[in-house]
Amino acid sequence: MTDKAIPDIIVGRLPMYLRSLQRMAREGRQVTSSQEIGERLRISAAQIRKDLSQFGEFGKQGTGYNIPYLTGEIQKILHVDHDWDMVVVGAGELGTAVARYKGFTNRGFKVKMVFDSDPDKIGLQVGEFVVQDSAQMVETIQVAGIKIAMVAVPAPQAQEVANQLVKAGIRAILNYAPISLNVPSNVSVQQIDPSIHLQRMTYYIK
Amino acid sequence: MTDKAIPDIIVGRLPMYLRSLQRMAREGRQVTSSQEIGERLRISAAQIRKDLSQFGEFGKQGTGYNIPYLTGEIQKILHVDHDWDMVVVGAGELGTAVARYKGFTNRGFKVKMVFDSDPDKIGLQVGEFVVQDSAQMVETIQVAGIKIAMVAVPAPQAQEVANQLVKAGIRAILNYAPISLNVPSNVSVQQIDPSIHLQRMTYYIK
Repeated sequence: MTDKAIPDIIVGRLPMYLRSLQRMAREGRQVTSSQEIGERLRISAAQIRKDLSQFGEFGKQGTGYNIPYLTGEIQKILHVDHDWDMVVVGAGELGTAVARYKGFTNRGFKVKMVFDSDPDKIGLQVGEFVVQDSAQMVETIQVAGIKIAMVAVPAPQAQEVANQLVKAGIRAILNYAPISLNVPSNVSVQQIDPSIHLQRMTYYIK
Repeated sequence: MTDKAIPDIIVGRLPMYLRSLQRMAREGRQVTSSQEIGERLRISAAQIRKDLSQFGEFGKQGTGYNIPYLTGEIQKILHVDHDWDMVVVGAGELGTAVARYKGFTNRGFKVKMVFDSDPDKIGLQVGEFVVQDSAQMVETIQVAGIKIAMVAVPAPQAQEVANQLVKAGIRAILNYAPISLNVPSNVSVQQIDPSIHLQRMTYYIK
C-alpha cells in the first residue's frame, strides 16, 4: 500500500464515511452498502467504492459492508484506532468551549492540556483542566510527546503560536482562528472555517 | 444551467476555490491557474478545471484565470455576492465566540441576532448584540426574514432548536452541537465537526 499515492481529497472523505458508519452502528445496524452511505452523504455509491478500493477490499459484491469491520479498518487507516492526546491553545470563550467539547468521544481524540499567555487566565479551571502558562508550552508538549494541537487564539497571535507548536513537535494543527497558517510540510493544518460550510448551503437557497 | 444536476460534492469544493482566490487577491495577485489553486488545496488541476466547467467558461486556455472575475463568478454561483443575515442560537461560550467571530467579513455573512432560553443570559450584551429570549425566536426570525442559523446549544437541545428554526423559515443550519440533526429536505444542515478535520490529519502522522 503506497500511502503517498493516495490523493488528499480521498483521504478527506474517509472521516465522513467513518462518521456515517459509527452513526449506523449506534442505530443498531450491522450491514450497509455504498448506496446507503452515499445517500446519507450525498456522494455517489461509485465514488465511495472507488475511494475505499484505494485502501483494500472491505466488502463482498452483493452482500455489502459489515459495519463493525469497515469501521475498524477505516479507523486503522486514519490512525484513530487509539486515542490521540491533544492540547488547546487559547482559554478564551472559544478555547474553553473546545476544551469542554463532548464530541471527541469515540472519535480518536482527547484534550489533555489548555494553555494561555494571559496572566488572568493562567491557573483558572476550565472543565477538568487548569490553564497552563504558554511560556512553558513548548517544553511541556515535548515532554508529554503530544502531536496534535487546537489553536483558539485571536488571529494576530495565531501564526506565532503555530511557530511554537511546530518547535514543540506538533504534527497536526486544527486552527480556529480566521487566518491562514504557514507551517513546514511535515505538519498538517486544517482550519475550522464556518464560511466554507455556509457557502455550500447558500448555493441551495434560491 | 441545470443546478439540480451538479453533485453536492462539487458544490462543496467551490467555497474552497473561492477562499483560495480571495487569499490570492489579498496578496495582490491578478491572475492564477488551476495548477496553482490545486497546489494550494492539494487537489488536482484537472479536478478544478472539471468542477468549474460545470458552471461555465471562466478562463482562457493558456492565460489562466482572472482572479477578481473568477471570484465574482463563484460568489454569484454560491449566492454570496451579497451578505446573508444570520442568527446564533445559544449564548454560552461557543455561541458567544461564534457571534463575535471575525472571519465572516467579505465571506457573505453577518450575524444579526443571538438567542438563548436561559433567563440568566437573556438581556446580556454579547459583542454588539443583546441576547434575546428564544421563546420569541420563531416569530422574530420570521419577521426579519432571516434564512440562516448557527446552532451552538448543548447536544440534548439541538434537535428541538432545529425544529423551531425550520418553523421560522430557516433554510440553512450550521450545527456546532455534536449530534446529527433531522430537518426537511428543503433545509440544509452542515455540522462543524472538529473530529472530521483531525482524522484527515492523523492519517499523515506515522
